[in-house]
Amino acid sequence: MRKPPWYREYRDVSIIPEKMAQATQILRDLNIDVWLVFVRETLLNRDPALDFILDGEVTWRSAFLITRSGHHIAIVGHFDARNIESMDVFSQVVDYHHGIREPLLEALQQLRPRKIAINYSTSDVAADGLTVGLYHNLHDYFENTDYASRLISAEPIIAALRGRKSPTEIELVQAAVNITEQIFDEVGRFAKVGMTQREIADFVHFHIESHGLDYAWEKNYDPIVTCGPYSPYGHAAPSDVPLEKGHTLHIDLGIKHNGYCSDLQRMWYVLDDGETTAPPDVKHAFDTVYGAIKAGEAALRPGVPGWKVDAAARQYIVDNNYAEYMHAFGHLLGRSVHDGATVLAPRWERYAGICELPVEVGNIFTLELHVTIPERGIMSVEEDVLVTDTGVQYLSKPQTELRYIHS
Amino acid sequence: MRKPPWYREYRDVSIIPEKMAQATQILRDLNIDVWLVFVRETLLNRDPALDFILDGEVTWRSAFLITRSGHHIAIVGHFDARNIESMDVFSQVVDYHHGIREPLLEALQQLRPRKIAINYSTSDVAADGLTVGLYHNLHDYFENTDYASRLISAEPIIAALRGRKSPTEIELVQAAVNITEQIFDEVGRFAKVGMTQREIADFVHFHIESHGLDYAWEKNYDPIVTCGPYSPYGHAAPSDVPLEKGHTLHIDLGIKHNGYCSDLQRMWYVLDDGETTAPPDVKHAFDTVYGAIKAGEAALRPGVPGWKVDAAARQYIVDNNYAEYMHAFGHLLGRSVHDGATVLAPRWERYAGICELPVEVGNIFTLELHVTIPERGIMSVEEDVLVTDTGVQYLSKPQTELRYIHS
Repeated sequence: MRKPPWYREYRDVSIIPEKMAQATQILRDLNIDVWLVFVRETLLNRDPALDFILDGEVTWRSAFLITRSGHHIAIVGHFDARNIESMDVFSQVVDYHHGIREPLLEALQQLRPRKIAINYSTSDVAADGLTVGLYHNLHDYFENTDYASRLISAEPIIAALRGRKSPTEIELVQAAVNITEQIFDEVGRFAKVGMTQREIADFVHFHIESHGLDYAWEKNYDPIVTCGPYSPYGHAAPSDVPLEKGHTLHIDLGIKHNGYCSDLQRMWYVLDDGETTAPPDVKHAFDTVYGAIKAGEAALRPGVPGWKVDAAARQYIVDNNYAEYMHAFGHLLGRSVHDGATVLAPRWERYAGICELPVEVGNIFTLELHVTIPERGIMSVEEDVLVTDTGVQYLSKPQTELRYIHS
Repeated sequence: MRKPPWYREYRDVSIIPEKMAQATQILRDLNIDVWLVFVRETLLNRDPALDFILDGEVTWRSAFLITRSGHHIAIVGHFDARNIESMDVFSQVVDYHHGIREPLLEALQQLRPRKIAINYSTSDVAADGLTVGLYHNLHDYFENTDYASRLISAEPIIAALRGRKSPTEIELVQAAVNITEQIFDEVGRFAKVGMTQREIADFVHFHIESHGLDYAWEKNYDPIVTCGPYSPYGHAAPSDVPLEKGHTLHIDLGIKHNGYCSDLQRMWYVLDDGETTAPPDVKHAFDTVYGAIKAGEAALRPGVPGWKVDAAARQYIVDNNYAEYMHAFGHLLGRSVHDGATVLAPRWERYAGICELPVEVGNIFTLELHVTIPERGIMSVEEDVLVTDTGVQYLSKPQTELRYIHS
């Protein structure tokens, strides 16, 4: 198969050195001596923080001690040691045969940390990799020492490390966004009246799979294809509902390439007989969604808590007499499509903690919302943007007007 | 590319109904009212127990209540609900917009459980999916109730559920094993004196990737290819060490197909000039490894604790004047290559708890160990076996004699 112009070869880029240097600096800024990532059998249960520490997996209980001095220590099972050494990220690799307790205590004795940050968080999934059983293990090891009293949550470390994208990470998300936009262009040429949601999804799947891309979320509903007033909205699989004249077509698509994700939504309107442009109700819906994204964009700047950005967009929707959307206005995007920490969301129970966090330079957010048009379908747009010192830089080419499908 | 005879099409088999029926029975046997699996953003951090509950992912905090009555309840974020309903596994799907606290408390009030099992375990990674943050969430929700005092570990539920393979699971592991043996046969025809470990690994990678198979563990060291006395043993990537006459060739390969894994090791000897069979030191090593596996096999029967099985094999090695292997004699195999719970391993710190668990009917174990032959390399064999009422059924065709590479 001929490779399309937008195809990019798989790049064996390790972001680990860049992110570990960033982690060291974050520990200095936060005045934390040691960040301890404690894991086991990572193929079966992987702490999300490992994304920035390890290009691979470990089998037996393993402790990664990232320190503010930059002297990083890995303590791993004997048969994993060669792998970890070859990564050249840890200044010291300690291996063990029988158990990790002794080498871990020895390493801590050597480091004498005042605070030891570990991966738990009630609000941020990305900072909550430590399991209850492993936490009990640590407490057992720390009996007869005072290390347990020095444990703190690594939440601020991980929020900063995952949230503040490095130059390579920004480049990789940008590449994923570019590819996604090319796929949207192909869909626009392909989609015709009478096609089902499933046919359109299959077309997208073909593009993703034949070019060696990955899905940003489950293939089952990536892309989400919604058309007309009768198809459910949300994380639902495409169905046999066909594309009809006078209806909207909505696609929510995320791809993953070289380990980084895109997440975009685009809107089409299927022109009815005699129409050359969308009718007023459809136009008004598009303009309102567009206006709300611009309102949110205007509020999005470093230091602002996430909920305030959401509130700006949400108010715009309500002011235009639409029902408010029952989801967040935006989430972080990166290695994972929901990339943890700060969320641009209302102060609902399910966003507690993470909607209070401030926007930071280097964050990549989605900006997304929808309204419903009776008898026609939904109108839902999503952009991907980078937060800079001075405001917002679009990674996507924003959808400033409706796209059309001619019947 | 022509599909080889051992190629099997991807089967869209859901094991969920089979395993959920099994879970219900296990709850009855253990006299536990409710098993609560509590998760969020499973794309970023996935509880291993979800393998048997959910064919997909959920975004917001979600509670899966599996009950002994068979009335299973899912409480999920609104936009995930359609997906969960379509799985047809839960009798009741409750969705929420703002937060899970209220619907979760309502469901528990309806169920009135005496015991609520949750996923934590100090010893078994597969039963330790609950994170510290989510555990704190539960405690917050349960304030002003006495549910917190009813929490117990789901370890015995998960050990039984993951450990006792269903008929479909046994069939899927058998299929993965069969494919792996075909790849070993191809390697035996391909490998020649002077080839490097990396060339042999590349050949295996080509087979795996061109036929749509997955790796059972990281591609980086799947397969592990070891030859001669100077290459490291363990989870190490193949290197540029070439295959030489008078040396052993060892390959440790696991594939994953239709979601289930194989894990096998096979041994070759490279005949030296004038040799028609392996020299005595190599033969003795093979016979000892073979004998040790048979000794372990003889000890492997339902009800025996894992460490006793390891001890039988280990004693055989020591009795034959080789150094004991510094790893477990066997681990469970299934959806994951190290499939949690019972391990056939010595009573070392790192195997605490899981080496005391009894072998059960329906367990699939690897049986594996190695000795080192000075100047020639290692001798390491691994078989995959199913525990039955009456003893042991081999899923692999056991390696009963050395294979040869003719120079």
